[in-house]
Amino acid sequence: MSLNVLHYKHQGRAQWGVVRKGIVTPIPGEFETTADFIRMNHIETLSALTGPAIPESEVEWLSPVTRNQQFVCQGANYRQHMIESGMDPDAKTFNMIFTKATSCVVPADSPVVRPQEVRFLDYEIELGLVMKRDITSRQSITDANLHEYIAGAVIVNDYSARDIQIPQMQFYKGKSYRTFGPVGPYLCLLESRDIPTLRRLDLTLTVNGAVRQNDSTANLVYGPAETLTELSGVHDLYVGDLLSTGTPSGCALSVPSPGKQKIAALLPEAVKWRMFMNVQAGRSQYLKAGDLVEARIASPDGLIDLGVQRNRIVGEAA
Amino acid sequence: MSLNVLHYKHQGRAQWGVVRKGIVTPIPGEFETTADFIRMNHIETLSALTGPAIPESEVEWLSPVTRNQQFVCQGANYRQHMIESGMDPDAKTFNMIFTKATSCVVPADSPVVRPQEVRFLDYEIELGLVMKRDITSRQSITDANLHEYIAGAVIVNDYSARDIQIPQMQFYKGKSYRTFGPVGPYLCLLESRDIPTLRRLDLTLTVNGAVRQNDSTANLVYGPAETLTELSGVHDLYVGDLLSTGTPSGCALSVPSPGKQKIAALLPEAVKWRMFMNVQAGRSQYLKAGDLVEARIASPDGLIDLGVQRNRIVGEAA
Repeated sequence: MSLNVLHYKHQGRAQWGVVRKGIVTPIPGEFETTADFIRMNHIETLSALTGPAIPESEVEWLSPVTRNQQFVCQGANYRQHMIESGMDPDAKTFNMIFTKATSCVVPADSPVVRPQEVRFLDYEIELGLVMKRDITSRQSITDANLHEYIAGAVIVNDYSARDIQIPQMQFYKGKSYRTFGPVGPYLCLLESRDIPTLRRLDLTLTVNGAVRQNDSTANLVYGPAETLTELSGVHDLYVGDLLSTGTPSGCALSVPSPGKQKIAALLPEAVKWRMFMNVQAGRSQYLKAGDLVEARIASPDGLIDLGVQRNRIVGEAA
Repeated sequence: MSLNVLHYKHQGRAQWGVVRKGIVTPIPGEFETTADFIRMNHIETLSALTGPAIPESEVEWLSPVTRNQQFVCQGANYRQHMIESGMDPDAKTFNMIFTKATSCVVPADSPVVRPQEVRFLDYEIELGLVMKRDITSRQSITDANLHEYIAGAVIVNDYSARDIQIPQMQFYKGKSYRTFGPVGPYLCLLESRDIPTLRRLDLTLTVNGAVRQNDSTANLVYGPAETLTELSGVHDLYVGDLLSTGTPSGCALSVPSPGKQKIAALLPEAVKWRMFMNVQAGRSQYLKAGDLVEARIASPDGLIDLGVQRNRIVGEAA
């Protein structure tokens, strides 16, 4: 059965612990990175762990994915989101991959800073998968052996500056601002029998209590096994690395219809992007200082529950 | 004055050394990462180093940028290259930033593997800059203080699978294949008085001896100081990290004229990309197994000379 672990700070010390019903049981040992933690611990042993009981409310959350790890992301990977963007999910033309700078990783309850130059700050709830082992050559990864490659799951919010990301084409800069990558709160460690549940998780994101995104991982276009198989033929992945699997529809971003996109392509670049900015300016869904974003991912039966992320949006200090 | 250092293996041990006229003088100490090497050594001390003299031909080159470091890249950053791509370099609309997976980093004399699924393998000679210190907040970096941020320079070849990179929009995957990032041979450490020379380096890339790319860093659109200033407002950079500053014109890639791009945008996606592939198939410049790619970067007066990269293209083993 899955097991939630927490990376946290208590009495000035960074530690890892098992979390059950709001109580943290510290895990003996020091593990500086996610890689160290995963290499040195096994879910079977941790499931039987006993020890001191610390109320979770007394500890400070840290990100369960540390900044030394790679942060690889999929784009346009939910059916409805692809359809709205004018793509055909059944065509499966390609699996869009990009990265975020790891210095954007923050704890799940961190404030998210809207940089001064950013007008259109958007949210993206995503299921994150954490690697169990290194991959340094082509592998055939299937649902049957996925448990050998995936240690666990986390909530990721892939915050995005749409006015940077979209006109500049390459997603990296607009998605890499400091605080744009809350991860956690929990790293939910998985056993092989939990793997099928990864494909029936509900994702829900609210802003000030109102639901904006709500979908199921059943609607993922490129699943974890085929994505890791493809990536294994491109570059190395290391234990503890993070693969964020894309976001469902419901973001603030307004993508023009395919027909409008074709017409816009005929315009001079400056005109096209001015129109884009004007459309976004009419979207009240973009985040502003004071907004509270909450993200939840869990299976309907509660067998997997990744907890709740809560980010308050703040302006950048001058 | 600038000083070339080499990361190399000799008698089974990874080491660093000063290189002068084909002779390596080992630098005392063990430095596992580029960050460690830069933190623990100073150009003034190294310039006065004496010791054993090992012929460079007897050592095995390693990459002077280790795989733990970030690999950040600029796109479309030379005037002629932008003009050919239908962009106006004087408009300076945005500084395009993306990353390569660091597992693509290999020594400067490494074979480059064309993956089985890649038809259109291209070269991109680039000046790489290596960070001297961490940047964790917004900085104002100018030509006057750039020497406080840049430890040195390297040759980078940003090998690219055009049939993956271009149709999939996000550059990361098509540029991250294993062996797609030779770095070195030398890390050329710079003093403050060498910094102006960074803007008058000649870049020359040949394939089987014929010149394909030849330009000067005088034609960079976004210079190092303004690029680092902008990046400092986005994400953290760490000592030893690599910023690759973009490639001049002359690649195998054929970009349609702006007019043709506008017409192509009206076509169904599948038709548009089939046309793109057909155009590329007519370009004999794409690399094939057996080709020898050589890359050189130096100032006309020889004050800075980053050495020569030599990569033989090989097919992927079945």
